[in-house]
Amino acid sequence: MTYSELFQQICKKQSFLCVGLDSSSELIPDCLRDNEYPLFDFNKAIVDATAQYAVSFKPNIAFYEAEGVKGWKQFEMTVDYIKTNYPEIMVIADAKRGDIGNTAKKYAQAFFTRMNCDAVTLAPYMGEDSVRPFLDIEGKWSVILALTSNKSAEDFETGKSSSLSVDGYLMPMFEKIIRKAMTWGSCDNTMFVVGATRPEKLREIRTYCPDHFLLVPGVGAQGGTIAEVAKYGLNSHCGLLVNSSRGIIYASHGEDFAQVAAEEAHRLAEDMSKYL
Amino acid sequence: MTYSELFQQICKKQSFLCVGLDSSSELIPDCLRDNEYPLFDFNKAIVDATAQYAVSFKPNIAFYEAEGVKGWKQFEMTVDYIKTNYPEIMVIADAKRGDIGNTAKKYAQAFFTRMNCDAVTLAPYMGEDSVRPFLDIEGKWSVILALTSNKSAEDFETGKSSSLSVDGYLMPMFEKIIRKAMTWGSCDNTMFVVGATRPEKLREIRTYCPDHFLLVPGVGAQGGTIAEVAKYGLNSHCGLLVNSSRGIIYASHGEDFAQVAAEEAHRLAEDMSKYL
Repeated sequence: MTYSELFQQICKKQSFLCVGLDSSSELIPDCLRDNEYPLFDFNKAIVDATAQYAVSFKPNIAFYEAEGVKGWKQFEMTVDYIKTNYPEIMVIADAKRGDIGNTAKKYAQAFFTRMNCDAVTLAPYMGEDSVRPFLDIEGKWSVILALTSNKSAEDFETGKSSSLSVDGYLMPMFEKIIRKAMTWGSCDNTMFVVGATRPEKLREIRTYCPDHFLLVPGVGAQGGTIAEVAKYGLNSHCGLLVNSSRGIIYASHGEDFAQVAAEEAHRLAEDMSKYL
Repeated sequence: MTYSELFQQICKKQSFLCVGLDSSSELIPDCLRDNEYPLFDFNKAIVDATAQYAVSFKPNIAFYEAEGVKGWKQFEMTVDYIKTNYPEIMVIADAKRGDIGNTAKKYAQAFFTRMNCDAVTLAPYMGEDSVRPFLDIEGKWSVILALTSNKSAEDFETGKSSSLSVDGYLMPMFEKIIRKAMTWGSCDNTMFVVGATRPEKLREIRTYCPDHFLLVPGVGAQGGTIAEVAKYGLNSHCGLLVNSSRGIIYASHGEDFAQVAAEEAHRLAEDMSKYL
């Protein structure tokens, strides 16, 4: 999927919503639990109900791995279902992988060659050679962790680093990562994760990273707002994918879960359309 | 598995060898390729042949994920086989996971509750709450990436950080991570990854991290030597697990692969025994 195809979807749907498929056996509605593939059936219903409002779906792999082989199968079924029925929607495997070159190549193969995910989230700690095999596959995206939405982001991400200091300015680790990783790929294959919980940082980031798409988690349950994210993060090609997971998929735990998820996705998309 | 159980194994076998099960369909011997579960059959043969010389096995998950559902199944079969037949040997899932708290909990469930891995490698970028759920499960180990063996480790890991500076000393990111993570857990549930390719750094690390076990990849193919790693890294309870993957498991690509792997593991273990 190209930058312009993604932008076209955003214009058409007047939305930059990413729906997070953090689908967990303990939290899906009771009415699905005895199904053979409960997570897949849940995802299918959520996808069908929200596809008109979403430009991206983001399954988080942890929820599927926690169910072993059967979980992994349902993750594959979900990706396959989306890419077959909604090929224009970006599928981001939220995997946060990162390993040395020959191993990273295997992960790239898992998500991009074997499965048809459009993007995968990556942990940048090990540096360029842990990201390179993902960038080498055409039409696919690397979504690199920069400033995450969790409290402990302050442990290392926001710590100042002198390695790229200019005139005595010590930049925080996440800024160093963004600046470095911008040189590895381009706007057409690289995004960064920046949490909605720190909207003022979005403004700073846009000064040195004006054109890249940013994947923004942390709206809703975690406290961020679309208004603030849009104010500081939008660029001329939108440049934002704002994710909501629990706020949409678990908006109802009853049999009406898909309908209520659609209403919530619709509400967020309407909110987003004001800023486009 | 406890610190003292691990140390007992090391004393008994006079070895601190970890055998990396980076088992890939393209590299296993031809004679196994038509089997129903080629990766598992390969691993089983390698495990049986090298168990007397190894105190740990470390499957790298990327190689299994690259084969989809069937790969994941063979990873589970491998862990199950080792823990059933060699319960005293530590199984390290080399997964390099890391995510926000509720998601990290799912990964911990995948590797520690659903499967019976003893340890999992973790990427520390997102901070304490991405590691906490793993530390909360008793008898299990978090193996945290500090200074990895790949070239791009220099991108971020060795960059100086001022956040924990003392008297103007700017410590590198990997040192900050070790010092911080030492406060999260203890020697009984935390190890650090330090590559054999930078043996002089081992000496430095031992000044502020004397007691923890270190998992050391990069011996053999990547250029590190056991002599140097032992010289700078050993402590009074050994404190080292030195990994070799390709150098052992692919020492022969013929039908004698298991026997040649055993010879290579034996040679490494004999070398290690000199330093214990």
